[in-house]
Amino acid sequence: MSDIKKYIEENKDRFLNELFDLIRIPSISSISDHKEDMVRAAEYWKKTILAAGADYAEVSPTKGNPIVYGEKIIDPSLPTVIVYAHYDVMPVDPLDLWKQDDPFEPVIKDGKIWARGADDDKGQGFMHAKAFEYLVKTNQLKCNVKFMIEGEEEIGSPNMGEWCEQNKDRLKGDVILVSDTGMIAADVPSITVGLRGLTYLQVEVTGPNRDLHSGLFGGAVANPINILSNMISSLIDENGRITVPGFYDDVLESSAEEREALNKAPFSEDDYKKAINVEALHGEAGYTTIERTGIRP
Amino acid sequence: MSDIKKYIEENKDRFLNELFDLIRIPSISSISDHKEDMVRAAEYWKKTILAAGADYAEVSPTKGNPIVYGEKIIDPSLPTVIVYAHYDVMPVDPLDLWKQDDPFEPVIKDGKIWARGADDDKGQGFMHAKAFEYLVKTNQLKCNVKFMIEGEEEIGSPNMGEWCEQNKDRLKGDVILVSDTGMIAADVPSITVGLRGLTYLQVEVTGPNRDLHSGLFGGAVANPINILSNMISSLIDENGRITVPGFYDDVLESSAEEREALNKAPFSEDDYKKAINVEALHGEAGYTTIERTGIRP
Repeated sequence: MSDIKKYIEENKDRFLNELFDLIRIPSISSISDHKEDMVRAAEYWKKTILAAGADYAEVSPTKGNPIVYGEKIIDPSLPTVIVYAHYDVMPVDPLDLWKQDDPFEPVIKDGKIWARGADDDKGQGFMHAKAFEYLVKTNQLKCNVKFMIEGEEEIGSPNMGEWCEQNKDRLKGDVILVSDTGMIAADVPSITVGLRGLTYLQVEVTGPNRDLHSGLFGGAVANPINILSNMISSLIDENGRITVPGFYDDVLESSAEEREALNKAPFSEDDYKKAINVEALHGEAGYTTIERTGIRP
Repeated sequence: MSDIKKYIEENKDRFLNELFDLIRIPSISSISDHKEDMVRAAEYWKKTILAAGADYAEVSPTKGNPIVYGEKIIDPSLPTVIVYAHYDVMPVDPLDLWKQDDPFEPVIKDGKIWARGADDDKGQGFMHAKAFEYLVKTNQLKCNVKFMIEGEEEIGSPNMGEWCEQNKDRLKGDVILVSDTGMIAADVPSITVGLRGLTYLQVEVTGPNRDLHSGLFGGAVANPINILSNMISSLIDENGRITVPGFYDDVLESSAEEREALNKAPFSEDDYKKAINVEALHGEAGYTTIERTGIRP
C-alpha cells in the first residue's frame, strides 16, 4: 500500500469526525441568524489549518463574514500554492425534500456523505487541508502553502474583493488551487484549470398603463412579453453565438492543441444527457459539449 | 325637442331605476355561488323585453346559464333584426380597487354610471331594449325584432353554440345588432360592423429534470425560457406579420374603398397613445392603427 493510502487508512475515522464537526456548524451565509455560526466555522477552519501544520492562521474580519487566512512558508524561493475554499453553505429549505432529519447531521450511505456542505464546499476544502497535513507530517511538502477560506461564496462574495486588495502582499503566490469545482466523473480525478464568469442584469419592460383588451387593442400596441421575448431571443443567433456587439472581443480562442487535449477527457455525452434527462443538447455550433461548457462563454 | 329625446327625458328616471335593478343582481358567471343570480337576471331580462313590447319572451335553459329569447314579429316579409347582449358580468375582486363600497350598487358621477356591468353589458343591452320600447310605443317599428341575451359571455359562451344550433329556425334574421362593442369616442355614436376572433393555446416547454448550474451546464443545455422566448418571438416577423404557415389563407383583404372609409373614422392616434400612456404604437407594417385593430388579425 502506498504511503498516502496508508495515512488515509490510519486516520480515516479522525478525518471523518473532524469533517463532520465542521459540517455540523450550520454556516448559512444568506440567513443573518447564522452570524455566530459563521464565526464558529471560521474558527474551526483556523484550528484545522494550524493542526495540519501551518505556521500561522487567523480569522480575519471583513465587513461581512470573516476570511480565514493561514500559511506555511518553508522557503520563500520555492513556489507558493494558495488554497481557496469557502465555509459557508446554502440554506436547507425545503426541509421535507431531504431524506434525513437534519441536513447538518452527516449520514454515510453507499460510501457517500450526505449533508449540507459535504460537497460544497466543506468536503473539498477539507480534502486539501488533509493533503497538506499529510505532506507536512511526512516531510514531503515541496512548496509554500497559503490558505484563504471565505464565508460569503454563496452570496456572491461581496467583501472578498476588498479583503484581497488589503491583503495583496500576503496573497502573493504562483498557483491558486480552487477546492470548489467539479469532477468529470466520480472515478476521474480532475483539476479544473479555467473558470467562466457570470454576467447578469435585470431588464424591466413596461407597457401600457393598464391591461388592454386584446380584441380592442391587439395588433396595434406592443405587449411587453412579446418585446421581452424578442430581446431574449435576439441575444443568441441560430448558431448559438451571442449577438451583443463586442461580446467576443475579450474571449480567448483556445488553440487546436488545447482543444484536442480537452476533448481527450473521459466524457460521455450519452451519460450526460441521461443524467439530466434531456434528449438533445443545444449550444454553439462548431464546439463539443465539453468545449461549450469549458472554453466557450 | 325631437320625439325620441322627449321620450328619453320623460322616462329617464324609470329607465335608470330599471337598469339599476338589473345591475344590482350580481350575475357573475365564473363563480358558481351565483347560479341563482343568473336565473334572476335572465328573468329580469324576460320581463324587460315583454314590458318593452315583445309578443313573446322566454328564459330558455342550456347546460349552463339560461339564454333569454324574445321576439316581436310585425310582418314576416319585413327584415328582422336580432339583438345580442349578455347579462353575466366579471368578478369584482379585488374589492379595494373600487372607489365605491358595493360594485353592484350603481353610483352616478359626472353623468356616468359606475357599477359592475354598467358598461359590460347591461347598459348597452338596456339601450337596445329601450330603443325597441320607444319604437313600439310610438308605432315607429319598421322591422321584426328578436332578442337573444346570454349569460355566459364572460366565460367563453360554452353553451351558446349548441343552443343556437337547436334554435336555428327562430334565430333567422337579416342583421345581428351586437350590444357588446366599443365606441370610437364617447361623443361618436358607432356601430361595429366586424369582429375578430380569438385563438389561444398553452405551450409547456420542459427541460432537464432539475435545476442546472449555469457555470457547469451553461452553453450546452437548452434553457426552457430561451426556447420559449424563441418560439414566441418567431411567431411574428419584423414587419409584424404572423409567420405560422397558412395563417393568412382565410384572412380577407379589405378593399381600397373599405380601407378608405375605415380611415375616415374620427380617430386620433395621439389621444389613443395618451390614453394608454405609450410613446409608440407597434404593429403590422402597411396598416394604420384603426386598420390593425379593425381589419387585421
